Amino acid sequence: MALRQLARAQPLLARPVLAPRSAILAPRLAASFTSTPRRSDVPPQAYQQPPGQGGIPPNGTKVKPGFFARSGKFFRTFGRVTLVVVITTTGAFLYVTQTQNSPPEQLPADKEKPTLVVLGSGWGATSFLKSLDTEEFNVVVISPRNYFLFTPLLPSVTVGTLEPRSIIQPTRYITRHKKRKVDVYEAEAQEVDPVKKTVTFQDLSDIRGAAGSVTIPYDYLVYAVGCENQTFGIKGVNEHACFLKELSDADKIRTKLMDCIETAAFRDQPQDEIDRLMHMVVVGGGPTGVEYAGELHDFLIDDLKKWYPEVADRLRITLIEALPNVLPAFSKQLIQYTESTFAENKIDVLTRTMVKDVKESSVVVQDANKQMREIPYGLLVWATGNTSRQITRDLMSKLTSVQTQRRGLLVDDYLSLLGGDGIYAVGDCTATSYAPTAQVASQQGIYLAGVFQKLGQKAKLERQLAQLRATAAAPEEIEATVKKLNRAAKLTPFHYSHQGSLAYIGSEKAIADLPLFNGNVASGGGAAMLFWRSAYVSTLYSVRNRTLVLADWLKVKIFGR
Amino acid sequence: MALRQLARAQPLLARPVLAPRSAILAPRLAASFTSTPRRSDVPPQAYQQPPGQGGIPPNGTKVKPGFFARSGKFFRTFGRVTLVVVITTTGAFLYVTQTQNSPPEQLPADKEKPTLVVLGSGWGATSFLKSLDTEEFNVVVISPRNYFLFTPLLPSVTVGTLEPRSIIQPTRYITRHKKRKVDVYEAEAQEVDPVKKTVTFQDLSDIRGAAGSVTIPYDYLVYAVGCENQTFGIKGVNEHACFLKELSDADKIRTKLMDCIETAAFRDQPQDEIDRLMHMVVVGGGPTGVEYAGELHDFLIDDLKKWYPEVADRLRITLIEALPNVLPAFSKQLIQYTESTFAENKIDVLTRTMVKDVKESSVVVQDANKQMREIPYGLLVWATGNTSRQITRDLMSKLTSVQTQRRGLLVDDYLSLLGGDGIYAVGDCTATSYAPTAQVASQQGIYLAGVFQKLGQKAKLERQLAQLRATAAAPEEIEATVKKLNRAAKLTPFHYSHQGSLAYIGSEKAIADLPLFNGNVASGGGAAMLFWRSAYVSTLYSVRNRTLVLADWLKVKIFGR
Repeated sequence: MALRQLARAQPLLARPVLAPRSAILAPRLAASFTSTPRRSDVPPQAYQQPPGQGGIPPNGTKVKPGFFARSGKFFRTFGRVTLVVVITTTGAFLYVTQTQNSPPEQLPADKEKPTLVVLGSGWGATSFLKSLDTEEFNVVVISPRNYFLFTPLLPSVTVGTLEPRSIIQPTRYITRHKKRKVDVYEAEAQEVDPVKKTVTFQDLSDIRGAAGSVTIPYDYLVYAVGCENQTFGIKGVNEHACFLKELSDADKIRTKLMDCIETAAFRDQPQDEIDRLMHMVVVGGGPTGVEYAGELHDFLIDDLKKWYPEVADRLRITLIEALPNVLPAFSKQLIQYTESTFAENKIDVLTRTMVKDVKESSVVVQDANKQMREIPYGLLVWATGNTSRQITRDLMSKLTSVQTQRRGLLVDDYLSLLGGDGIYAVGDCTATSYAPTAQVASQQGIYLAGVFQKLGQKAKLERQLAQLRATAAAPEEIEATVKKLNRAAKLTPFHYSHQGSLAYIGSEKAIADLPLFNGNVASGGGAAMLFWRSAYVSTLYSVRNRTLVLADWLKVKIFGR
Repeated sequence: MALRQLARAQPLLARPVLAPRSAILAPRLAASFTSTPRRSDVPPQAYQQPPGQGGIPPNGTKVKPGFFARSGKFFRTFGRVTLVVVITTTGAFLYVTQTQNSPPEQLPADKEKPTLVVLGSGWGATSFLKSLDTEEFNVVVISPRNYFLFTPLLPSVTVGTLEPRSIIQPTRYITRHKKRKVDVYEAEAQEVDPVKKTVTFQDLSDIRGAAGSVTIPYDYLVYAVGCENQTFGIKGVNEHACFLKELSDADKIRTKLMDCIETAAFRDQPQDEIDRLMHMVVVGGGPTGVEYAGELHDFLIDDLKKWYPEVADRLRITLIEALPNVLPAFSKQLIQYTESTFAENKIDVLTRTMVKDVKESSVVVQDANKQMREIPYGLLVWATGNTSRQITRDLMSKLTSVQTQRRGLLVDDYLSLLGGDGIYAVGDCTATSYAPTAQVASQQGIYLAGVFQKLGQKAKLERQLAQLRATAAAPEEIEATVKKLNRAAKLTPFHYSHQGSLAYIGSEKAIADLPLFNGNVASGGGAAMLFWRSAYVSTLYSVRNRTLVLADWLKVKIFGR
């Protein structure tokens, strides 16, 4: 996906300097490059200083001409290259961003075309929208969130490494660049009726207008509503724990974290209260939990020690995981590398430990030896995985004959919902053989956009065919169109291509599990960290997000959090 | 203040390039500048192209050597200057920021020294802390907000022009650079007892520890708690209006504004509901209200039209002011300029109009002709001014014999509270002849730091004198110290020097009222806008904030909001 993105961006990047400015710049640049007197063309005395001229002291020390000539040439070339690079990249950058920031006129809605409703604005829905050709459809997007959230970077927002706005992309930034107008509604889908083919949705935000619950018909439905947080029915999780799924969660964690630290630093705070308040517990050893623990540790080392020296040393981080080890999706070496890095960073990892009860300021766990313990905490982050949303469970209950998986919706090889006419489902709301990751959802979205590309072609060709038949065109012309139609109707099943797994584990270290050379290459440390950053930056959807994230990283390096 | 700040920053800015790198860079740079062959030093044939060499086509067109020589030289010099400027500024910038970001070791608390309690973290308290020498005091800062907020830029945060973090500075960034350790408590002061000389404060944030309400004694108290929003007892203001005083207010307005727009764009929203939801009402024609209306207008023009074309044209902005005109602190021309700019920008200004009742979705006003009207709105921003906080009213009630002003605390010419031993008061909580502005509070803070500088000197000299007398030193030595002591005890009264008033009014226009050349210079338009931006950037306290604000402005220019 990153490569596709880059490939599309290239022509834009190349244009501005070659086209509008070339008439003025190109000959000048060429001239300045070639007319520079090379050392061999110039008599050597030309490089010598007339005595007394220039700023170098003529106080007896002999000036070696070769050195100055060489350093002069070095600076000349280096300076000129700097200048050209600065001008070129600035021009290209401004051109691309201005294009993205100036959406074009769009075709209006067309009653003749089928209605395509998209539910969601996560990885699946957004990559689908990005790749979709809207010409043959009236598209309606419904999501309680009017932006796409780059979830893998969410842990960085909780401690202030990144700004919330840097990792989101408003859905309208995508839909406003589509050929035909797309309706975007910030609303929660309440019900899908697969028989009547309708969707009911409602504005559940604070400010509501006279229009309440609305039901609209669809011809096609792309169902990408994702999941909600899995609490396993454990008491107190919803009340006392913080989740890490939405932007508002990250904001809440950031506020609570600072509040814990300030309260610990409060006058005459008892020692055991300081220990409790400075104890941060993370439940769930998947990538989200591990990355959050890593970011917390960085925050301690980089910032807390400087600005809160009185309590910084009291900070403890504990990661609780029910399985025998963290990061089950990664290879053994990487798990060991993570665990040893965590041990160095004084992050306690409690594996084979089950949370039984979450109280306001302590969590009750059953440890590896089946012993019950109560652990006091200041902040508890819950990152244990997903479960189906209510609307998904409702939809399944309407199609009980085919929808038999409790885990999620069943789809065929073409991502078409079993039992649902015109419904396609992608991402975490489905139950497939793939892991519920952003990568899978994103590839499914792109695949599905291809399916709709073919559906659009089919509709176009059918219209052509009807017209040809009505005007009694030549049989060979009709036959050719029928052949094209047959080709357009042919679909290849969805195939997932695993690009690797990445996780940031703190102290500028990251781990990467990459399926290269027919085996898994596992790597950790600084190089993986750089790889982690560049991989994330290049999969971030827009030039805007890429720049903002890079700027944030730079800001943190320079100013702290 | 801006100048003081700059003056202090200069030596830091100059150092890095001259000191550490000079040994390597300076001779090289000098060499490269002087060893360049000037045109007059070089035989003309040296600039000529040997035929067939270089990239320029030898296809008959005669190549003019002079042109290439000139453009070559231009690029050479320009490129080199670019390079030097880039390296120098980067180095200086990194040096300054790293110094600010690496707080030094501090002296511990000293029981022999008096305790100085500072209440607040606004303009008064922060400029006081910035200038204060903490060596002779144990300083305790108590404020419900652990950061300084650059309030004049707050309206820009509401529409996303600036990031919240860019306009705040954590109080610890200041106190951690002080000579002696400063205690900072995020807590709300509950009571000041001017007889027992104690302050009671409490942690009122969501997360609280075992330590609850704490009372500590003070020797000196700097009272800078500011004010709260003035509602004039009008019904519904607290429930339905948004204020614009704290960062959380700006956040709330941003969320509500987007929510109004999304709800207006909701499917099948009735026309009159769209009109209501897209009607933004600002109550209060002071700088805050005017700037907010201006920012809203920019947001409409720059962003709303692009991303919400279906509802953008329905946005209406109304400014309500009870007085006969907006911006009473500015000169007549500037008021007219503002009103005509607002008329161009289709911002309705209702003057001589009083708000009588604020309902959930409409506001009842009495207009200039004493007629009552009900105006439907989507978002209502309340920016009408200030009133004393509860703790200030309580303090006044304990000193009724001298504190006779309802408007605020009375202080003498040295900012010492009437009737309060060891208490000083600055900023909006006081009732002086000055306007309740950031500029006044900030100058009072700096003045007061000077008062404490003298108090510290006095304490030092008294210790010296006691020692001299104890050791029976020479009488002339004792006399000299007594003289110094007398000088240190002498204070000049506070004098406010007005630097001018600035306000941003939208469409990249600003107005500035500057007391220059013995008269008021009034200016408006693009130049004032540039002045506005640079004035704000240079009064922003730290290099960190300056850079972040500049980066935000650049981001908005490039990517939109």
